[in-house]
Amino acid sequence: MKYSFKNDYAEGAHPRILEALIQSNLIQQNGYGLDEYSLNAENIIRQKINNPKSKVHFVSGGTQANLIVISAFLRPHESVVAAATGHIFTNESGAIEATGHKVHGIETSEGKIYPDDIQKIIDVHQNKPHQVKQKLVYISNSTEVGTIYSKKELIDLYQFCQERNLYLFVDGARLGHALTAENNDLTLEDFGKYTDAFYLGGTKNGALIGEAIIINNESLQEEFGFHLKQKGAMLAKGRLLGIQFQELLKDDLYFDLAKQANQQAMKIKDAFTQVGCKFLSETFTNQIFPILTDSQIEQLSINFDFYVWKKLDNEKSAIRLITSWATTNEIIEKFTTEIKNLK
Amino acid sequence: MKYSFKNDYAEGAHPRILEALIQSNLIQQNGYGLDEYSLNAENIIRQKINNPKSKVHFVSGGTQANLIVISAFLRPHESVVAAATGHIFTNESGAIEATGHKVHGIETSEGKIYPDDIQKIIDVHQNKPHQVKQKLVYISNSTEVGTIYSKKELIDLYQFCQERNLYLFVDGARLGHALTAENNDLTLEDFGKYTDAFYLGGTKNGALIGEAIIINNESLQEEFGFHLKQKGAMLAKGRLLGIQFQELLKDDLYFDLAKQANQQAMKIKDAFTQVGCKFLSETFTNQIFPILTDSQIEQLSINFDFYVWKKLDNEKSAIRLITSWATTNEIIEKFTTEIKNLK
Amino acid sequence: MKYSFKNDYAEGAHPRILEALIQSNLIQQNGYGLDEYSLNAENIIRQKINNPKSKVHFVSGGTQANLIVISAFLRPHESVVAAATGHIFTNESGAIEATGHKVHGIETSEGKIYPDDIQKIIDVHQNKPHQVKQKLVYISNSTEVGTIYSKKELIDLYQFCQERNLYLFVDGARLGHALTAENNDLTLEDFGKYTDAFYLGGTKNGALIGEAIIINNESLQEEFGFHLKQKGAMLAKGRLLGIQFQELLKDDLYFDLAKQANQQAMKIKDAFTQVGCKFLSETFTNQIFPILTDSQIEQLSINFDFYVWKKLDNEKSAIRLITSWATTNEIIEKFTTEIKNLK
Amino acid sequence: MKYSFKNDYAEGAHPRILEALIQSNLIQQNGYGLDEYSLNAENIIRQKINNPKSKVHFVSGGTQANLIVISAFLRPHESVVAAATGHIFTNESGAIEATGHKVHGIETSEGKIYPDDIQKIIDVHQNKPHQVKQKLVYISNSTEVGTIYSKKELIDLYQFCQERNLYLFVDGARLGHALTAENNDLTLEDFGKYTDAFYLGGTKNGALIGEAIIINNESLQEEFGFHLKQKGAMLAKGRLLGIQFQELLKDDLYFDLAKQANQQAMKIKDAFTQVGCKFLSETFTNQIFPILTDSQIEQLSINFDFYVWKKLDNEKSAIRLITSWATTNEIIEKFTTEIKNLK
Repeated sequence: MKYSFKNDYAEGAHPRILEALIQSNLIQQNGYGLDEYSLNAENIIRQKINNPKSKVHFVSGGTQANLIVISAFLRPHESVVAAATGHIFTNESGAIEATGHKVHGIETSEGKIYPDDIQKIIDVHQNKPHQVKQKLVYISNSTEVGTIYSKKELIDLYQFCQERNLYLFVDGARLGHALTAENNDLTLEDFGKYTDAFYLGGTKNGALIGEAIIINNESLQEEFGFHLKQKGAMLAKGRLLGIQFQELLKDDLYFDLAKQANQQAMKIKDAFTQVGCKFLSETFTNQIFPILTDSQIEQLSINFDFYVWKKLDNEKSAIRLITSWATTNEIIEKFTTEIKNLK
Repeated sequence: MKYSFKNDYAEGAHPRILEALIQSNLIQQNGYGLDEYSLNAENIIRQKINNPKSKVHFVSGGTQANLIVISAFLRPHESVVAAATGHIFTNESGAIEATGHKVHGIETSEGKIYPDDIQKIIDVHQNKPHQVKQKLVYISNSTEVGTIYSKKELIDLYQFCQERNLYLFVDGARLGHALTAENNDLTLEDFGKYTDAFYLGGTKNGALIGEAIIINNESLQEEFGFHLKQKGAMLAKGRLLGIQFQELLKDDLYFDLAKQANQQAMKIKDAFTQVGCKFLSETFTNQIFPILTDSQIEQLSINFDFYVWKKLDNEKSAIRLITSWATTNEIIEKFTTEIKNLK
Repeated sequence: MKYSFKNDYAEGAHPRILEALIQSNLIQQNGYGLDEYSLNAENIIRQKINNPKSKVHFVSGGTQANLIVISAFLRPHESVVAAATGHIFTNESGAIEATGHKVHGIETSEGKIYPDDIQKIIDVHQNKPHQVKQKLVYISNSTEVGTIYSKKELIDLYQFCQERNLYLFVDGARLGHALTAENNDLTLEDFGKYTDAFYLGGTKNGALIGEAIIINNESLQEEFGFHLKQKGAMLAKGRLLGIQFQELLKDDLYFDLAKQANQQAMKIKDAFTQVGCKFLSETFTNQIFPILTDSQIEQLSINFDFYVWKKLDNEKSAIRLITSWATTNEIIEKFTTEIKNLK
Repeated sequence: MKYSFKNDYAEGAHPRILEALIQSNLIQQNGYGLDEYSLNAENIIRQKINNPKSKVHFVSGGTQANLIVISAFLRPHESVVAAATGHIFTNESGAIEATGHKVHGIETSEGKIYPDDIQKIIDVHQNKPHQVKQKLVYISNSTEVGTIYSKKELIDLYQFCQERNLYLFVDGARLGHALTAENNDLTLEDFGKYTDAFYLGGTKNGALIGEAIIINNESLQEEFGFHLKQKGAMLAKGRLLGIQFQELLKDDLYFDLAKQANQQAMKIKDAFTQVGCKFLSETFTNQIFPILTDSQIEQLSINFDFYVWKKLDNEKSAIRLITSWATTNEIIEKFTTEIKNLK
């Protein structure tokens, strides 16, 4: 059986999470997110982001978080601006459009968008009311290609959005990995301060399922529960989400797991660098994109599974490798040994 | 702390499910429902319903199952016929309408609908194309008020639907409880034969989360995965759902748990009957609706939690009591003792 | 060729309207509702309703007006309360639900709804956020069964809506007929004062097409044009609508035409009354519902066309007769003569 | 008052259309498109496109035609491929997305798309079911930038669509202008043969309002009326549309008007060419895009109104000039004289 580097959700949950489920299992709780675990997890998040007025809602996955947040925030004629690599633009089967909203995709070199990109979209949509009105900016951190935003970049985006009356929403499916990357200068508090809403991903960082949606902008908090219910996201046993986030957040397990995933990726990155390999883009999170020859890819494929991400020419392609909290040192050693033996 | 009879999702999961999660935890699997547990659970279901051509999809909750099935099956101008007590009509925050479809609600005495009821709706919608076209009949078994359909009733409905070119879809959030009720004459195989689609509820019968959607009508199976993804229902760790249903179904744990819940409810029912109490409707599943005086309700409320369901007059109301797989004999004894002491 | 009393849109337009189209035909105008005729018609309406802050938008038909107003005013989880006879509930092919909103239908005796009816709907939707939130009350005046609201009834509804934070929207497809009925005590100004929005129907009162949507509630006026455009309602040659309403409203042609239609209906009503005929409901507008025997219906059907509205027993049915601005005295004489000869 | 070349809908209707409205005005007709004029116009169209099995529906405008056709043809997970200049991509305020469907925009040099462009979109959407499924190709003829498709181009597109199981839908808001352009080799019959559906625009070619949707693909014809009704497009007085198309089509008035508009544009084009002016793209229909200096633009703006379409550099911009059936020789002479005097 090959070891898979295809994604960061190939295993179950971190053992501490399973343990927490077992410990709490027979304690009766209210349904639909009103259990004490969810309420406690919300409080922990408010403290960690240092924003006592934020509201927190737990949902089961990223596409669900994206479609509910966006459809709840926008009026029918309002649209979303995102990177063309953004998960909502290409990988959610039209989930946002299915709620009635256009998504403008910006071509980028590294999956990140900037005020100028957004302004260009706005500039060509001035024929009101014949064109949709841009109202929400969607970014991911870390991005779908493993890169991260700097503090200055986030603040610039937020200020731009504030000035243009746009909402800034951050897809944080891998926010833990972003915040523990060696080149990161952002904190969780910054996301409580410089976004209208964001979410903290559990699925890709040790939970069985679960994303924590955090709404900072008070005008967007009202009646959010209706949207959760209407889109089928309000779990009867909301405790399942509350328990997991309570456990992940109570002593920084969340960040420890993400950091570990990043470190394992960096070991692989180092091994490739040592054998002279280049990368599609430079990343410091748990996704790396080494450029290999077809024969090198074939060689690594014998014992390991991964996606060939992008064909570059007749001989070379970039592959995508993703590590997780569950990637062991043993696997890393085995894999880096193979890398060092690549011809 | 009061013991709650408010619902059947107050606890976590049956211990065997937690055990199965632990055992499988570090085995890498494909994402998005392509894990071996989900594939295996699908096969078990096909065998149990004796329909090798059925397709099975696992989702996290009932509202999600309802909205995805209905929006996937219908074209924009088609509508749904349901009981006015039906979950989709009153308790899903407009989830079906949010996908663009009207739901016609039929007033019923016991939560069940019959061909004549549906025909009446069709009869008053003959002004085509000025009125919506009825295309799908939604029933719940057991119903939202604890009653169940007989085999003859199901077959009559299915034949009527076949003749009228309607789909028959069964919400089986509590199908286990229906099929193990003492007055039941239906089998799981009947649902593989006499419905276009149905689902088998896990959340209310021992799972952490999860409903298994089963599509029998082959013309409705095509491209269903797109709808799951688009509505945010396709879990990255679909294994969480597969493992649970595999465990619940492999040796009839599913039916054992439902039967136990029903039996606990029947013990309570007997106790009320013995003290001369009447019921809002006669039920044999895990929901019972005894009619009590306000002072009796007050008395029982000291140690137990439940919903006052319907005020009947100035003195009496029906309460709703729900038992589950987790309702212990100890609790039942304590509660029935209190019932027998009611004045 | 039989003369038809089936509806009030069997002919083209009042000749003055055609004349106005001819006179203005070659004058170049801005597109999309920015022509001088539309702007002028908006001003005339503001004056007539005595509300200088109202905004007016012209669209081509009633279903279009209803779906745009309702979808523009509501957030996704909000619903509409209407009479079960309301046009949006039964005769628009699910147009409102297609925009994502549930419509609650209230059974009524005469097509009119009252605060108590609405309160009952609200009372059974208190399980938040599991049930939709009622936000807009839709009434028609005259109603779909020809009845009208009194001033007290309208004010009561509006005050109730204000107290409950609901919008009141009036479908005025036949508002002209309502306001010129002999039992009417409302004025056009009242609709500028006691509604959040309403529309003034042209199609059924002498125009080729056209309804004038009037939004009184300033918080609902913003960015309405986007909704018109998005739903395909913004005509390139908006002048077609502006010219017609300018002509209809400049010297009360609109009310003269409606009054004439009513008077013709009353002549028919009198003739039926004289021969001892009863009516399904008592109406004073251009719709009447006499109850006839099957043989009487057969007799009248030889030279006239109309709908059999409701079968009452084995011998009798109510028919529906609609008159219009184009119903001549000659026709009325011929028809009433036949009525008086009924056995 | 300046003469406007801003669009082809600045005037009312061709006088023969007004005359036809007057002649038919008091003849009673069925409502909702079942009038004899609409039925007759449908027959004329079937003959002209030589496809007796096509179905025809008349609606009031282009955005309405686009959104109804597309939402009626597609299932929720299916998407549309269009040019980035396509009307649905940029100029309909998100009308298609509001019905739930993503539109992929292809960057083009001249507003036209080819099989290779579409294939590229399909190629990057192979991750099923995580990405939308392309199902309908939307093209405009003439395009939004005045260019037209050749017969070979249309047939190639249609064959490609047939092979890929895609629908081909043509926005013919200016189809008359395309078919009467001097470089055109397509016929109306070709559109009855090489498309699944298309529409024939009236608004921009002499009608007050109106587009004729023609559905050739029989599998897409069924129950189309429901969609018209649900989207508010079914006019009570459908006669207004039927009369106009009957008149436009009965002796080729439609093509005469379009041809005249084109000829007037070509006279302007010649004048610009004579003074050495270049064009943004070479067009032979009623839209031309001459490139002028800012001072030339200023000079022409004194007596004429038009859009500055695209700024090319610090000195030059392309302007857009649109002629119509109503553009007189007198105006053309006055304008070309001014052109010849440009410095």
